Amino acid sequence: MSRTLSALWEQPALRPIALIVLSSWQDGYLTPADLLQVREALSRAAWLDDDARQRLSGWLDPESPPSPRALRTLEREVSGWLKQLPAARRGSLSELASALAEAQPGASNRDAARQLLAPLDALFSYEAPGIGTAAPGLAVHGPEQAVVERLRSALDGQHKPIRDKVRAILSDAQFRYVSELSTEAYREQVLSWLKALATSGLLEMAYPHGLEAGRDIGQFVSAFEALAFFDLSLVVKFGVQFGLFGGTVEGLGTTRHLSLVPDIATCQLLGCFAMTERGHGSNVRDLLTVARYQPETKEFVITTPNLSAGKEWIGNAALHARMAVVFAQLETLGERHGVHAFLVPIRDAHGAPVRSVRIEDCGEKMGLNGVDNGRLWFDDVRVPREALLDRFGQVAEDGEYESKIPSAGKRFFTMLGVLVGGRISVAGGALSSSKVGLAIALRYAEQRRQFPDAEGNEQPLLGYLTHRRRLVPRLAAAYAFSFAQHELVHQSEALGRDGDTRSVETLAAGIKALGTWQAVDTLQQCRECCGGQGYLTANRLDALRTDTDVFTTFEGDNTVLLQLVAKDLLFKFKRALKKNPVLTVARALGENLMSAVTERNPFDTRRDDSESLTSFEFHEAALRFREKSLLESLTRRIFSRTSRGMDAQAAFEECQDHALSLARAHVEHFVVVGFQQAAAEDGLLGRLCALYGLWRIEADAAWFLENGYFVANKSRAIRSELNSLVGELAIESRTLIDAFGIPESCLGPLADSSYLAATGLTVEVGEQGVQKPAEQIPPQSADEKKKKA
Amino acid sequence: MSRTLSALWEQPALRPIALIVLSSWQDGYLTPADLLQVREALSRAAWLDDDARQRLSGWLDPESPPSPRALRTLEREVSGWLKQLPAARRGSLSELASALAEAQPGASNRDAARQLLAPLDALFSYEAPGIGTAAPGLAVHGPEQAVVERLRSALDGQHKPIRDKVRAILSDAQFRYVSELSTEAYREQVLSWLKALATSGLLEMAYPHGLEAGRDIGQFVSAFEALAFFDLSLVVKFGVQFGLFGGTVEGLGTTRHLSLVPDIATCQLLGCFAMTERGHGSNVRDLLTVARYQPETKEFVITTPNLSAGKEWIGNAALHARMAVVFAQLETLGERHGVHAFLVPIRDAHGAPVRSVRIEDCGEKMGLNGVDNGRLWFDDVRVPREALLDRFGQVAEDGEYESKIPSAGKRFFTMLGVLVGGRISVAGGALSSSKVGLAIALRYAEQRRQFPDAEGNEQPLLGYLTHRRRLVPRLAAAYAFSFAQHELVHQSEALGRDGDTRSVETLAAGIKALGTWQAVDTLQQCRECCGGQGYLTANRLDALRTDTDVFTTFEGDNTVLLQLVAKDLLFKFKRALKKNPVLTVARALGENLMSAVTERNPFDTRRDDSESLTSFEFHEAALRFREKSLLESLTRRIFSRTSRGMDAQAAFEECQDHALSLARAHVEHFVVVGFQQAAAEDGLLGRLCALYGLWRIEADAAWFLENGYFVANKSRAIRSELNSLVGELAIESRTLIDAFGIPESCLGPLADSSYLAATGLTVEVGEQGVQKPAEQIPPQSADEKKKKA
Repeated sequence: MSRTLSALWEQPALRPIALIVLSSWQDGYLTPADLLQVREALSRAAWLDDDARQRLSGWLDPESPPSPRALRTLEREVSGWLKQLPAARRGSLSELASALAEAQPGASNRDAARQLLAPLDALFSYEAPGIGTAAPGLAVHGPEQAVVERLRSALDGQHKPIRDKVRAILSDAQFRYVSELSTEAYREQVLSWLKALATSGLLEMAYPHGLEAGRDIGQFVSAFEALAFFDLSLVVKFGVQFGLFGGTVEGLGTTRHLSLVPDIATCQLLGCFAMTERGHGSNVRDLLTVARYQPETKEFVITTPNLSAGKEWIGNAALHARMAVVFAQLETLGERHGVHAFLVPIRDAHGAPVRSVRIEDCGEKMGLNGVDNGRLWFDDVRVPREALLDRFGQVAEDGEYESKIPSAGKRFFTMLGVLVGGRISVAGGALSSSKVGLAIALRYAEQRRQFPDAEGNEQPLLGYLTHRRRLVPRLAAAYAFSFAQHELVHQSEALGRDGDTRSVETLAAGIKALGTWQAVDTLQQCRECCGGQGYLTANRLDALRTDTDVFTTFEGDNTVLLQLVAKDLLFKFKRALKKNPVLTVARALGENLMSAVTERNPFDTRRDDSESLTSFEFHEAALRFREKSLLESLTRRIFSRTSRGMDAQAAFEECQDHALSLARAHVEHFVVVGFQQAAAEDGLLGRLCALYGLWRIEADAAWFLENGYFVANKSRAIRSELNSLVGELAIESRTLIDAFGIPESCLGPLADSSYLAATGLTVEVGEQGVQKPAEQIPPQSADEKKKKA
Repeated sequence: MSRTLSALWEQPALRPIALIVLSSWQDGYLTPADLLQVREALSRAAWLDDDARQRLSGWLDPESPPSPRALRTLEREVSGWLKQLPAARRGSLSELASALAEAQPGASNRDAARQLLAPLDALFSYEAPGIGTAAPGLAVHGPEQAVVERLRSALDGQHKPIRDKVRAILSDAQFRYVSELSTEAYREQVLSWLKALATSGLLEMAYPHGLEAGRDIGQFVSAFEALAFFDLSLVVKFGVQFGLFGGTVEGLGTTRHLSLVPDIATCQLLGCFAMTERGHGSNVRDLLTVARYQPETKEFVITTPNLSAGKEWIGNAALHARMAVVFAQLETLGERHGVHAFLVPIRDAHGAPVRSVRIEDCGEKMGLNGVDNGRLWFDDVRVPREALLDRFGQVAEDGEYESKIPSAGKRFFTMLGVLVGGRISVAGGALSSSKVGLAIALRYAEQRRQFPDAEGNEQPLLGYLTHRRRLVPRLAAAYAFSFAQHELVHQSEALGRDGDTRSVETLAAGIKALGTWQAVDTLQQCRECCGGQGYLTANRLDALRTDTDVFTTFEGDNTVLLQLVAKDLLFKFKRALKKNPVLTVARALGENLMSAVTERNPFDTRRDDSESLTSFEFHEAALRFREKSLLESLTRRIFSRTSRGMDAQAAFEECQDHALSLARAHVEHFVVVGFQQAAAEDGLLGRLCALYGLWRIEADAAWFLENGYFVANKSRAIRSELNSLVGELAIESRTLIDAFGIPESCLGPLADSSYLAATGLTVEVGEQGVQKPAEQIPPQSADEKKKKA
């Protein structure tokens, strides 16, 4: 070809074509098949004369690419032009082309250019400039104190005082890690920490209206979260003693039981929560332990009828608890009334098991070995009638049963609802654990260097794209779930003591499931990102990872919890339609028809500019669309089965994977919306929130592509945008992790730069970025000498 | 509407329409927006007369769906017709319609029907009938011994005798788990196990041609894999002593060093492998320890020049090793020649550290606490000239350095290549660990029941779709990686002692990375699928999970290893093109152009029948297409940077996520092809292989959709087909796990049905599926009585 590439740019009418040529060669994502498609599309464009078409086709010949030099020249021209274009115009290829055409005298071919190029948009993707893709020698900004404070206020929320109280307690010398304790010694250490907490003034804050008035759930959850920066065995023991044991006495008991609360609060009376049975973990409603009322003695007889009914996994039971709240099927006058809770002494004042109670130690666990989990069997243990925690059901002296809630099932779920704080706490504990892991891994990644660049300087781990990709989105997730916890606590507080807990329970179940899985996933990445150092117990990540692991299956197995969420969504959807018993589902779907179609308009499905990709509106709408679509399609699938006579439960189980997808979609939508609200006024939080939302969309890109919510170019652009965002936010990682307000003593050695330097995990780097001290640098190798010679 | 739905079926010409109507209502995946699209497409079909069109449109009105009864009637008709259709014809909607049209007298509208319906194919998905979606009361088949034997032969491969030898050794009473040992006692236990192995005759099998002739890598890896069913601390200690220490002496040493081998084999001489340094984990080539030759004394002086150079994580070093193979920069006559290995005594005969060697214990770890990992520092330790393992580089008495390999870099990689067996062993060890986890979790899932169905019978966990979805594909993965290991060993054996190890190393790196991540992922699912029981140390999953965890970052960090794989692929691709130094990349891409286009033909992208979805050809072609596309696009992206003057390493790092995707795609393609070859003649293996291939495609569905390799309906159909396959194979799970040949003693209590029953984890179920014994069943509840009354 005689004409040079840059000549293409000199002719305004051909500038759109120059753009195509440049993009075709410059953008590595374009495959040869794509290139062929570009050529075909152009060959059909009536807008081009034969000469231009032929020339263009030549520039796109894979057999004869332009010279690197010609491309560089063209690139300079185009980027010069791009720089002076307003940011809002820097969109997709067709938008650029139309901007180009517009700039020409006689802008009549603007639409023609756009029309020509629109079908090609899907083929092009843009890589964000700058830090996004590579950040050699990336230097993390020092923490900006004003920003740290601002973010910490947002994260701590309205319960900041109690969190600060916990931070102060944890800074006391007695709350220091004691390494390599035996299980026995560790359990005693945790008990002594627990007693120290009981006298620290913390509980007075958690029970602001006096112990008998019940705890303040927001205060309690906040204390729990802050404690979880330290040691999860202590946190679990704290939760068992004050939440599960104390909280049940106070929440399911009546006035007669409240006298116990002060002793519980001071740890004078240590207790446990005996619900789970060996044969019935998730399916608590069908547990088998029986409490039979005997009118003649006015006693309940607590019986473990068979091996499956043995209480299992009961925290505090193996060693320390003197009393248990035992969940059992209440039976009186030959009839059963469902699961109720009973106060049953299990040890005497000297710590010996009481008669007819058998206790076994569960033994070693993957983690949480500071908690003494045990098993309990009751061989006809007699307790007085008053041992029944009788807020929701009472047994009179003559054995007559009474309750304001007629159905045993409803009653059971009402009781469980009172305990929703436990699930919120568990989610918060796992979240705090993941924050500690992130703080360690990110500080380490900022300082630890590995592999030299072209100048021979080793790069910090955070300078590598894949390392940022592993850690930074999970940092965003920790923020996201923090705000979700706030919202959950807020909704829970708004209910008051007698509100209908169902929707809060659903939310708590969903956030517990996704939050604990996220925490475990985050900690796994943190462990791996610290390499072998992450595997050493002394460096904290071991305990964080293994202690948190069980959070995914206790306080409700995550898979079971997500099914609760899905069922509640289905239930509400159906209830909203119950006026038309036969055709409701179909009708409701019809009503939603037009909005669903509108949401998938061709323009939105293709927009791939940075502004639209990071916009809160895009994320919220996409996640809402997904939730709604999954709810509708799941309803239809179940409807198509039940309408043909299938049992509803069986129909649900046939669509179990679909139901889990719906539950995830619902919770993710909730979490993203909560984050967006919290981040609306804050630039840095806003970028973090954009990262989180986009990361969740990327994780389910297959679904969005499958459902036509966006097309290929957008999917590619999302990947590229995320690469850019993780770089931008990695630089602020120190500020973002300092805002968690984790006491330094909880972070372990890997987060401590002086430890890293003093033990050779990092090497000092001098002003020019070259490693120091000079005397450590080995003499030049013989091979290099030869090469130069 | 006056006409009934079934009347639609009675008129042959309208049968294709009946199909659409039925699918529209029966298939729950169709959203109202989809329905609208169906109606629109039909309204444009010239093939229909106005009457038919209007009627049809009526049947598709979301506001007025057909009655359940009418749908059932039509469904019966259609399924009757489907049954008599040859399996090969039961494809997509358009295929069915064309089959219908063909059956009519005057089959001229066959193509018309197909044309009409083809655009709709994308909207329809089919759910596989039967077991696929729900399997209430799923009963796992007992193990079929003949099949178990057949599969075990395939899994054990040509090294079955040594595997059986290990199984026999592990069945000895001395190889029993001893629970809750202190770290100190556990380390001694592992040492005594190691010594028992040394005298078991196992090593004679691993060194079939005598100890001095070097070990047989296939025998060694097979023994390692079989041992890994038992205790991973022992396996790692075994690998350190015989593989890393013994194997290095034998592989990097010369005749003068072989005299040590018998003492190593009998554990008379315990050793360690001191490569990793505190400052240089992944970047071994730049380690800092120096070995300086002094001609005057004919000694090397081994020096740790600074804290970063301390040897870190050295297995066997904290307590037991008397000698270390130390990797250090060889320096002689003032010049450096790169990393070499030296034999350095670190303890005397009494176990005390020798002078000038400092040793520290790494302390507790997340797992593998039976291995005594330590740190080493050398304060100018003197060793004789002969201490250099001098196979690839020699130092004469006067200090002159000689090597057949001139470049220090090449020399280093040649030495590493000799050690490739370590990486293969690590992958195999993690794989075995995951097999034990699967055996436990699947046996438990088969027996453990939770939540009652409509008849009140609790269901086995494996009866739940999501549970099968979590475990069964990972069972398939364990098979897949078993065959990949065979192929790797085979290629390694084929090389012989002096072959070019590069391609085997690349493969070993890739399989180690993906295999260990898969193992950790599998074990995590197994742990969670066993709930709280999975968290108890006594039930084995704790150790399996935590011991295996470090496999993802030792013997090469997985992320670093995948980059090696990507770089090797890029290198080979470029080398294949080196005749055209400037335009090679573009030209090569041009050559591949047409094949890429052919592979995305519209028919294949839509096929969603079960036969095509499970076909080996589809899986192989899809995974090959992905690998090729990613290689081409990565090459282009890097080329577009280097051609503009960017440093090659920097260009690679900008595309690091892309490179990792390529490496994964390459390894997955390799693994699937290997599985397909092994499964070609075996029906059951073939189904398992189909599951694995399809599961990998599903996992990256976003990529395939993005690149137009398939469209939405196919993506949905893949999901549905997988649901069907996991049900089908769950039934055979007992046979599939028994074929692993794991000694019962390695499985722990949860896999033992008599333990489960005796401790109440399972409840006996009688002939009718109702739980027994009757006396355990509690009396009827009062609420139920009232309900009936």
